[in-house]
Amino acid sequence: MLLKNASFVLYSKELKILKNFSIRIAEGKIERIGKLLKKERGEEVIDCKGKLVMPGLINTHTHASMTLFRGLGEDMELHEWLKKKIWPMESKLNPRDVFKGAMLAIMEMLKTGTTMFADMYFFMDQVAEACKKLGIKGVLSTGVMDFPTPESKNPLKEAERFIKRWKNKHKLITPSIGPHSIYSCGKETLEEVKRIAEENDVLIQIHLSETRREVYEAWKKYKLRPVEYLKSIDFLSERVLAAHSSWLTKQEVKILSEYDVKVSHCPVSNMKLATGGVIPLPEMMKQKVTVSLGTDGAASNNSLNMFETMKFAALLHKHARWDPTITKSKQIVKMATIEGAKALLMKTTGSLEEGKDADIIILNLNTPNWKPLHDVFANLVYSTYPSNVETVIVDGKVVVKDFKLTQFDEKKILRWFDGS
Amino acid sequence: MLLKNASFVLYSKELKILKNFSIRIAEGKIERIGKLLKKERGEEVIDCKGKLVMPGLINTHTHASMTLFRGLGEDMELHEWLKKKIWPMESKLNPRDVFKGAMLAIMEMLKTGTTMFADMYFFMDQVAEACKKLGIKGVLSTGVMDFPTPESKNPLKEAERFIKRWKNKHKLITPSIGPHSIYSCGKETLEEVKRIAEENDVLIQIHLSETRREVYEAWKKYKLRPVEYLKSIDFLSERVLAAHSSWLTKQEVKILSEYDVKVSHCPVSNMKLATGGVIPLPEMMKQKVTVSLGTDGAASNNSLNMFETMKFAALLHKHARWDPTITKSKQIVKMATIEGAKALLMKTTGSLEEGKDADIIILNLNTPNWKPLHDVFANLVYSTYPSNVETVIVDGKVVVKDFKLTQFDEKKILRWFDGS
Repeated sequence: MLLKNASFVLYSKELKILKNFSIRIAEGKIERIGKLLKKERGEEVIDCKGKLVMPGLINTHTHASMTLFRGLGEDMELHEWLKKKIWPMESKLNPRDVFKGAMLAIMEMLKTGTTMFADMYFFMDQVAEACKKLGIKGVLSTGVMDFPTPESKNPLKEAERFIKRWKNKHKLITPSIGPHSIYSCGKETLEEVKRIAEENDVLIQIHLSETRREVYEAWKKYKLRPVEYLKSIDFLSERVLAAHSSWLTKQEVKILSEYDVKVSHCPVSNMKLATGGVIPLPEMMKQKVTVSLGTDGAASNNSLNMFETMKFAALLHKHARWDPTITKSKQIVKMATIEGAKALLMKTTGSLEEGKDADIIILNLNTPNWKPLHDVFANLVYSTYPSNVETVIVDGKVVVKDFKLTQFDEKKILRWFDGS
Repeated sequence: MLLKNASFVLYSKELKILKNFSIRIAEGKIERIGKLLKKERGEEVIDCKGKLVMPGLINTHTHASMTLFRGLGEDMELHEWLKKKIWPMESKLNPRDVFKGAMLAIMEMLKTGTTMFADMYFFMDQVAEACKKLGIKGVLSTGVMDFPTPESKNPLKEAERFIKRWKNKHKLITPSIGPHSIYSCGKETLEEVKRIAEENDVLIQIHLSETRREVYEAWKKYKLRPVEYLKSIDFLSERVLAAHSSWLTKQEVKILSEYDVKVSHCPVSNMKLATGGVIPLPEMMKQKVTVSLGTDGAASNNSLNMFETMKFAALLHKHARWDPTITKSKQIVKMATIEGAKALLMKTTGSLEEGKDADIIILNLNTPNWKPLHDVFANLVYSTYPSNVETVIVDGKVVVKDFKLTQFDEKKILRWFDGS
């Protein structure tokens, strides 16, 4: 396939702007990026004149199937919301519900430019099937807590089964493990998680320092802050992805940096749940911590649009520091692409380079919100609408074409939710 | 015209949800809202099954033509940005530029559901012409400062001329006057503004308490905070619309309430320019101050999407107060509709009621981001995309149909900005 004559290509990890370049895709990979690539015999061509070609967005923290709860339990505090609303509703879910919720989420994610997402939930085989059906990449983890989940009395066992079931089985699916948090997983559970992750060489996804309450309770129990506690039990490593990480000290940022722990920043969810925390982004940048972006689940966002999350991320830190220079739009686009790939330990995606997976989105720029075009990165972060996403390619396969899913009937998915 | 069998109608100032209701429009007004309205002979029918019908959004603070500067001078502090970037660029604008910028802005506004906006700029005849061309309502003011504008050596005189030119001349255009701020307008200018506004019975739009610097300089000069200063020179009244109003004391909120001064809250612009301030929304609600929403110009936002502004407004206050219950989605929708109409002193729009102007938007709900539908107001504020806006009606005329402008060739407007 040839993406021909793109007005703009965001090239390499540095997002260098190339003008009027073409990209050749073969066997799911980017084979060539060049100025004068000609159509070869039998090759499919997508005309990219007037369009922007960039790496697909990577959403490093969500709970896809929680689209089921979009708009339920609004305007509540996180712990109350979990205990009174979310957990009771989740206890009634069956595998088919989880599948449908995941299909809806993936439909929204693909159509807003996301090509890979990290997920933590249960009945994860269903989420994997949804990924395969619609053609998105998933780094999927079974949620683990000390108490039973709706799926299993022994979530650790289920998590291990899920990993073995999917490890190296399908190129779209990367299994992982998801201890929920330090307040829902005791030391023994976390040690077991670590053993399983190391034995199977997978990523660990955990919620960390999301609320003041979590910090307070850790301090009360251990006389340590959450990151210090995880260090004390030897849990931290380069395979840990910490979602939220809002309430941290500089000392904790330093520990994250030392152990190369990755961060998923979820500004919309944090603001909506009013957790009050703001991740110390400038300090993290200084310490070279990998910071990526996540939407969190649709129950606490309530959208899965990564362009919106980019804008919130950029603006939240300007606002918090009283400094408009503290975030730059190019850096925010990196957080949503190459930093996301790093956070998920995926070396073959996150940027447009020869040899990498063809995980690519094509934006239509011929809309009022993209005019005039003085600054590509500013327009990307501050004025892109989901409706700019025209084409989405994952592993070389066109999964969104002319703004529509190609792998499944959109109307069928929407009909599942009629009357709800 | 008959809007037939809408799944949801947001009825009256209270935004009561009516299910399966129809709306009859005649002579630009809402004639009937009822359950069993039948098509009359020759009547145009819009089938609203599966759709939501609500009042058009009202953007109470913007500078439409500043779309010209979208993405220019990113990541700068407000005063530096004005002096080094915006004002020098503005000095080179001609009337035709202002017209084109306004056309682009109005195209974006209409297509994202805005039916009326308040504007402050210069060459305002051009903005009025753009409103007429595309069919949006404008409450338009010539910006006034102590120094000359690109248009006139005597902005006060020009402002008065503009008002007399347009007062009661065209139903889409409501003239107004726009003293820029207390730091760019001296006492005599503000007194003149007040006289002109009263003599002509028009709204006064002013930037107020946007930055810490403005507050500091007022204090240094007058030993008064900005609202106190305006009170001291007898400037305040029910015809004043104060944009931003971020840095206020409780005492100032009380003064705004006493004088029935209206507020335009612009959360995205404030966060982007990192002014640091957060309007004291809960205190304003308590004192019954009219608080509406504005995008501000595209140069400091950089979008004109009021749905996005609604989400930022809702989330900013939850975040600032560490309290997820501090804003409710229904209240936010009111701020973007009926409170906007109040802020602009427009009695005939802002809600769907018999006898009011037919300023109406119709949303397509059959998209992934609107599923499932547990809470209409939560979905409106937290997960509506611009692409949900299917039809826009202003004064009974369909100005956006099937997601497209009806009054002007969209491609022509976009072409003006090719290559920029």
